[in-house]
Amino acid sequence: MRLLFLFFVIYTTDAKLNVDYKVVESNIAEHVGKPYAPDWKDLDTRPLPEWYDKAKIGIFMHWGVYSVPSFGSEWFWSNWKSGDNKSIEFMNKNYPPGFTYQDFAPMFTAEFFDADAWASLFYKAGAKYIILTSKHHDGYTLFPSRRSFSWNAMEVGPKRDLVGEIAQAVRKNNLKFGVYHSLYEWFNPIYLEDKKNLYLTKNYPMTKLWPDLKQIVHDYEPSVIWSDGDWEAFDAYWNSTDLLAWLYNESPVKDEIVVNDRWGIGIPCHHGDFYNCADRYNPGKLQNHKWENAFTLDSKSWGYRRNMALHEILSIDQLLKEVVSTVSCGGNALINIGPTKEGTIAPIFQERLLTLGRWLLINGEAIYGSSPWIHQNDTYNANVWYTCTKQEYDAERPTSRPKPSDVITSVYAVFLHWPRDNMLKLRDIAPYLHTGTYKVQLLGNEGTLNWKISSGVALIPLPDKAIVESKHAWTLKFTQK
Amino acid sequence: MRLLFLFFVIYTTDAKLNVDYKVVESNIAEHVGKPYAPDWKDLDTRPLPEWYDKAKIGIFMHWGVYSVPSFGSEWFWSNWKSGDNKSIEFMNKNYPPGFTYQDFAPMFTAEFFDADAWASLFYKAGAKYIILTSKHHDGYTLFPSRRSFSWNAMEVGPKRDLVGEIAQAVRKNNLKFGVYHSLYEWFNPIYLEDKKNLYLTKNYPMTKLWPDLKQIVHDYEPSVIWSDGDWEAFDAYWNSTDLLAWLYNESPVKDEIVVNDRWGIGIPCHHGDFYNCADRYNPGKLQNHKWENAFTLDSKSWGYRRNMALHEILSIDQLLKEVVSTVSCGGNALINIGPTKEGTIAPIFQERLLTLGRWLLINGEAIYGSSPWIHQNDTYNANVWYTCTKQEYDAERPTSRPKPSDVITSVYAVFLHWPRDNMLKLRDIAPYLHTGTYKVQLLGNEGTLNWKISSGVALIPLPDKAIVESKHAWTLKFTQK
Amino acid sequence: MRLLFLFFVIYTTDAKLNVDYKVVESNIAEHVGKPYAPDWKDLDTRPLPEWYDKAKIGIFMHWGVYSVPSFGSEWFWSNWKSGDNKSIEFMNKNYPPGFTYQDFAPMFTAEFFDADAWASLFYKAGAKYIILTSKHHDGYTLFPSRRSFSWNAMEVGPKRDLVGEIAQAVRKNNLKFGVYHSLYEWFNPIYLEDKKNLYLTKNYPMTKLWPDLKQIVHDYEPSVIWSDGDWEAFDAYWNSTDLLAWLYNESPVKDEIVVNDRWGIGIPCHHGDFYNCADRYNPGKLQNHKWENAFTLDSKSWGYRRNMALHEILSIDQLLKEVVSTVSCGGNALINIGPTKEGTIAPIFQERLLTLGRWLLINGEAIYGSSPWIHQNDTYNANVWYTCTKQEYDAERPTSRPKPSDVITSVYAVFLHWPRDNMLKLRDIAPYLHTGTYKVQLLGNEGTLNWKISSGVALIPLPDKAIVESKHAWTLKFTQK
Amino acid sequence: MRLLFLFFVIYTTDAKLNVDYKVVESNIAEHVGKPYAPDWKDLDTRPLPEWYDKAKIGIFMHWGVYSVPSFGSEWFWSNWKSGDNKSIEFMNKNYPPGFTYQDFAPMFTAEFFDADAWASLFYKAGAKYIILTSKHHDGYTLFPSRRSFSWNAMEVGPKRDLVGEIAQAVRKNNLKFGVYHSLYEWFNPIYLEDKKNLYLTKNYPMTKLWPDLKQIVHDYEPSVIWSDGDWEAFDAYWNSTDLLAWLYNESPVKDEIVVNDRWGIGIPCHHGDFYNCADRYNPGKLQNHKWENAFTLDSKSWGYRRNMALHEILSIDQLLKEVVSTVSCGGNALINIGPTKEGTIAPIFQERLLTLGRWLLINGEAIYGSSPWIHQNDTYNANVWYTCTKQEYDAERPTSRPKPSDVITSVYAVFLHWPRDNMLKLRDIAPYLHTGTYKVQLLGNEGTLNWKISSGVALIPLPDKAIVESKHAWTLKFTQK
Repeated sequence: MRLLFLFFVIYTTDAKLNVDYKVVESNIAEHVGKPYAPDWKDLDTRPLPEWYDKAKIGIFMHWGVYSVPSFGSEWFWSNWKSGDNKSIEFMNKNYPPGFTYQDFAPMFTAEFFDADAWASLFYKAGAKYIILTSKHHDGYTLFPSRRSFSWNAMEVGPKRDLVGEIAQAVRKNNLKFGVYHSLYEWFNPIYLEDKKNLYLTKNYPMTKLWPDLKQIVHDYEPSVIWSDGDWEAFDAYWNSTDLLAWLYNESPVKDEIVVNDRWGIGIPCHHGDFYNCADRYNPGKLQNHKWENAFTLDSKSWGYRRNMALHEILSIDQLLKEVVSTVSCGGNALINIGPTKEGTIAPIFQERLLTLGRWLLINGEAIYGSSPWIHQNDTYNANVWYTCTKQEYDAERPTSRPKPSDVITSVYAVFLHWPRDNMLKLRDIAPYLHTGTYKVQLLGNEGTLNWKISSGVALIPLPDKAIVESKHAWTLKFTQK
Repeated sequence: MRLLFLFFVIYTTDAKLNVDYKVVESNIAEHVGKPYAPDWKDLDTRPLPEWYDKAKIGIFMHWGVYSVPSFGSEWFWSNWKSGDNKSIEFMNKNYPPGFTYQDFAPMFTAEFFDADAWASLFYKAGAKYIILTSKHHDGYTLFPSRRSFSWNAMEVGPKRDLVGEIAQAVRKNNLKFGVYHSLYEWFNPIYLEDKKNLYLTKNYPMTKLWPDLKQIVHDYEPSVIWSDGDWEAFDAYWNSTDLLAWLYNESPVKDEIVVNDRWGIGIPCHHGDFYNCADRYNPGKLQNHKWENAFTLDSKSWGYRRNMALHEILSIDQLLKEVVSTVSCGGNALINIGPTKEGTIAPIFQERLLTLGRWLLINGEAIYGSSPWIHQNDTYNANVWYTCTKQEYDAERPTSRPKPSDVITSVYAVFLHWPRDNMLKLRDIAPYLHTGTYKVQLLGNEGTLNWKISSGVALIPLPDKAIVESKHAWTLKFTQK
Repeated sequence: MRLLFLFFVIYTTDAKLNVDYKVVESNIAEHVGKPYAPDWKDLDTRPLPEWYDKAKIGIFMHWGVYSVPSFGSEWFWSNWKSGDNKSIEFMNKNYPPGFTYQDFAPMFTAEFFDADAWASLFYKAGAKYIILTSKHHDGYTLFPSRRSFSWNAMEVGPKRDLVGEIAQAVRKNNLKFGVYHSLYEWFNPIYLEDKKNLYLTKNYPMTKLWPDLKQIVHDYEPSVIWSDGDWEAFDAYWNSTDLLAWLYNESPVKDEIVVNDRWGIGIPCHHGDFYNCADRYNPGKLQNHKWENAFTLDSKSWGYRRNMALHEILSIDQLLKEVVSTVSCGGNALINIGPTKEGTIAPIFQERLLTLGRWLLINGEAIYGSSPWIHQNDTYNANVWYTCTKQEYDAERPTSRPKPSDVITSVYAVFLHWPRDNMLKLRDIAPYLHTGTYKVQLLGNEGTLNWKISSGVALIPLPDKAIVESKHAWTLKFTQK
Repeated sequence: MRLLFLFFVIYTTDAKLNVDYKVVESNIAEHVGKPYAPDWKDLDTRPLPEWYDKAKIGIFMHWGVYSVPSFGSEWFWSNWKSGDNKSIEFMNKNYPPGFTYQDFAPMFTAEFFDADAWASLFYKAGAKYIILTSKHHDGYTLFPSRRSFSWNAMEVGPKRDLVGEIAQAVRKNNLKFGVYHSLYEWFNPIYLEDKKNLYLTKNYPMTKLWPDLKQIVHDYEPSVIWSDGDWEAFDAYWNSTDLLAWLYNESPVKDEIVVNDRWGIGIPCHHGDFYNCADRYNPGKLQNHKWENAFTLDSKSWGYRRNMALHEILSIDQLLKEVVSTVSCGGNALINIGPTKEGTIAPIFQERLLTLGRWLLINGEAIYGSSPWIHQNDTYNANVWYTCTKQEYDAERPTSRPKPSDVITSVYAVFLHWPRDNMLKLRDIAPYLHTGTYKVQLLGNEGTLNWKISSGVALIPLPDKAIVESKHAWTLKFTQK
């Protein structure tokens, strides 16, 4: 009781977030039984499907013809053709003159690709949804696109419907499946023609883009469309709102679908079911809209790089920091790996993912289905991030601090460094501890911990590290007695 | 004078052809300054551009990704996928499982391709126009089609605009350039979708076919569009008449363009500037519409076959017979060769073409610019074919026997076998010789020949064969003194 | 003083080892200034070059054409040709019929190979010597063998002298360079002919084997020859003793060279500068001859496998256990990795090696230049392994327990599991602690530790784990005050 | 009778040739039952096996890895590495940097190779023996050489024993089979080492060259060894005479074997069963030792060139001139073709060979089993070449004019140009016609021809060309009544 009261006191000082709640509520109320109009004002009123906010952790895969040169990044083709010296040198040194990007496609062999093994790995990693590049900026599709004849994975390279195989395997493991999809294509002449026409013609979206996306929705029923490549034109050219209205009103995935925010100039960070804003977006504080931090285990590339060095790969500590800080601030963590052209996932990526999965076995209750708490990053100990769980999940406000009426069941403080004196010091939780009667536990270990408050800082003596089960990061769970 | 009179007597017995003239005349008359309507009735009134009828001899090239397996024929992909045992065995024996037709494309290297050398060969062969496969049924384009992204010669394989290079080289040699173009594409999913929809949808012609053809016309200004692959759908689906009306009325090639007859079910042999009817069509008698005999030097294939055997290749005697019999009956001879994937023309094809070219240096006046004579194939000596030349070229009636008002300048009798007794016997020319005063010459040799008529057959003693210049076939020229 | 006395008491019970010392001593004495005879009796008298025993940690690389299929193991060719189902299936599925092992060679591209980067990694890993496969059983040489024309890395594949580049880079980092070299070649017809002749002919050793090895010694001056592939024939066929006598007496590396024991049937574990006995040989107790534990980070293969799974790769704990137990028992640890055909070292291998290197920065003094102590594996705590260092290094007895006259400077107890109660219990060190006055330190941390003896077991309270610097394994250092 | 007498008169004026006979006779007499000593003096006494002289026409094939680049000539590798600009440019333009000659080998696919079809073609061409490059200067062997591990057609490229397949097929058609074999190998390091040692070491001939040649003789029992690549060293280095003594005395082919003259510096044109002297050697007059004119249908190369142009290929007229002039002067004609890497023979080569074969069906009796006549090239008509046949074949003097004791059965005059006046004029046969009573026939046509002598020149009126059966060249046969 008292805990909730204090929440209220603090909460009401945050006027801005308070207002947001009201707007959202009214809009949702209005929409029952009415189709969404193809404009952002109306589309923005759609509530976020609950599964997405609860999932917290997704795995992203960039896989395609760029996995063959596997050099620089998945932007290899564009880099090379834009005069990037390293790319040009790589080509000059290793390929005959005149070799084109398309010539790489037959070497995209995927001979070791086993969708079930991948899905099992993702499941063990603790991910709840999987996003695969159905088509990147090179235009090559990982499904048999009817508008990309002879430039898709069924006809050149693997000779398999990679999107279909992964969708099926992922779902067998009760994970959600979504697709990345690039609006533009660097070198598609129909797109370039529209571009040259200052986007006054729309041959590309009409004859290629939307037919492709509808084929995807129809054939694979994705739970996420992770749009990209939107930045050269306005949504009016892409016909984004029409597509979204169709997705929300009529498509076979209308109840479950979640889309991001990359739908044209000016749209990212302003519209969409969740916001990606920039790549590797991790603002470190609460946002007023559901967001996602899409980042890569290979810090230099989304696609596989054959020559990546160990120091360029996120350590498990860095990975956990990304996950924990993101979830604490209301985001989802979308962890990217680049599979190889042979269809394998590099063991170093396996290790990072499985270590995360083992960490989540102990600490997952602070992550999955959690909500932002009043505070996110402790003001005394910057290595500590808070989350909380509520009695009633509130899907409509996935990134909001708890409301006065919310019953908080637990608060979690995840700390990323173990104190050398075994004494964890926290400030932001202190007021609540001060007044309440709490049980404090270290996840993974039995028993409860004591605390005392000194100068407004809670001092919590930790168990002997030799017996602690969790590794790399640890979670204190605060529950009212 | 008397010769003309006799012509008239004979001519008027051919009532059917006579009627045709009238129709053609009236239609042409009506059309001055008026655009052609997109219907066959109106399109059929367009007069044949004169250059085409006079040209007589063209060279046809089938070149593309099928030149890589170079096995069976240019239909290899379709044969293989339709269960042809030899094709399947070839693939099983030589390629890994899952190898696709598209995987052949990077091996279409064309490293020795030299458009100028080819054009020079064609010039020496005596050809007057050149037709190149801009796109065959596999959909792969030899030009950078904007609707065939990553499935064209600029991006996969030669990395060159083969259509552009050949067009330019050919024109430098004062030869006309035309394109072969397949309407359908065996495996294009957009086409297959329309087909599945019983051609009630027209996505393929609207978004692929016509944009492609207009790109070709715009970029290369071909003098011929040699349409093919029309047989699965009616012209209503292909929108053929719209395209032709545009070509005749508005296109940059409206004055010069010539099209064949493959524009939909029921159209071949009925509509078009010239008729191809079937492949290797050579009816052996006069037709009532301009036609073309498209045939191959490799009797088994239009595309190059790496394993062709000598006995499968037309001998020079067979080639000359095709040319002579075709021209005599009002047709053009379109001689096909398949270049190699390396960009060479097999020496055996070079030899046939150059031998033809040398023959035409002596005998060409019986071919180029000639018209059908009253008789075509001599009724006594089946190895003899007639042509004639007129004082005024009559482009409107390219396949008609001479009219009464025509002034015949020469009649030519080409004979394909040299008589062992050196005495050439002809019946159909005999009546004219009988009454006239003629000069008879053997082309390539000086002097005139005697003759006598016996039992209605002209007996013409030939020069001693040891001094005769022409080889393989010979021409007697009859000119009124 | 007293410590030494006790050593003596215990030591003299080990009569067998004692005898060995005598033999060794006399032989060495006799040999001054005399060449070694080409027989094992004499060759065995050669003292082990000191550098090798002190080095302790080497890195082994299996790299070659097998790195291209990179399937199963470096025995792929043999497995496949011997009817291994998985190998056959792999070939049938991915390659055309008739594809040979040799056809893989041009794909051994090594485009990212950077010998300096590799050497730097090995240096950071704490290795002191590097062994590279100069030739494996497939006969393909990584150097331009004059007897392996067109089947070597200079002419097919990388087009580089891989042995030369690595030798040079490794030495720039002050590491020793050695070569693996297979005596037999599975499919070399000259060898097979000798074999068919029951090894009565020796064309293969005479015209191929020894010329090759002499070329290697001459061109690269290796410090180690790691012989293999000896098991099909006796040393009499291989001419092994002649080669070794030449190596020891005349070769440019006669002072430094170290060879292993694979020189013919019956030789392994009986003759050679050090013994490998079997692959992954790790007997867990003291041996009476210098030995080496050659083992792989990928538990399934010495060559790189593109599809290795994480669980097949040694964890850092497993790796440290191998290293520590091996060194404790007088062995060297030769850690194998398989580089990729592209010339990279998989990041998971980089991580294992660099983690080992960081461990050695703290714990290396217990490893490098250490000698076996009286006890190896603690009889109370099986996770503890002992080493010691002596005032005077005794190269002649690299695997012997200390002699009475040895002055032990420190004893080291490396423990692989941290006790949950922070109390390390040791039995075998207890007698010495009991009687002496010792300083006990945890490597990496400041300060000394207390102990008490209880029921013959030393109880040593460890520092709080939260402040311990070493990770994964820890070393107690015992020094007499 | 009188004819013979005249022969004698003329013959005895040729003192030099006469002496030669004597030497040969005595030597042969001495050798019965005695082995040949390994010196040229003795080896030269061996009589030429009769089959070879009678055969007259052989087909030569240059086939190997050079058939893949198929550029320049079979010397491509050497040209390229010696700095030939065109070869370097070809490589730079079409292949990645570092591409080696060996990298071409896997592309030597021979998928269409059908030894029986080839043998049938050779049979129809009228050839009596076939020579195949078992190994060219690149060292790549077309048989599974035990000393060329991984650099032979069984292991890299076709994966077939090409020598074995062709040997068998050729013999099924009753043709003789022989092998071309290069002594030196441009880039074999063992050879280069010997060369660097100024040929004082003989590792290459001892460990590579002779084992290879003995393997060939043992496995394929060739009727001809056509040696080449001898010019860098003396026969003393090659051990040529030892090899030949073994071949003549002990080998399984000792009765039938024929070798050419390329066995070391100074040997060509001086020793050997037959002399090749230079490539394309055709001296135009009688030689004093059996010789062979080895020449190519592609005038620019022995190996296949993908980009050969028609004008570079011998016309049938040029081919017949080579054959006829060679045989007339006592030589054999060895006609070279280069098969393609795919295993086909270019149709243009098929056509030349089959045209030759048809010519031989009519004119072969002037060629096969013929002997040089008293005169070779008519002194009045340079287009005429003579041969003759004798009652008893005289294998010991294959290149000598008839002896007084020889009974000439026919004299043949082959003429290469048909006279425009149908009157053939010959001087050298005139004396015999003048005095004798002869039948003169045109081969292929019935009947006999008249003649008259005028001013020492025989004037022979030919049949009307319109009825003559032979084409391209014609043969008059003179038989005494």
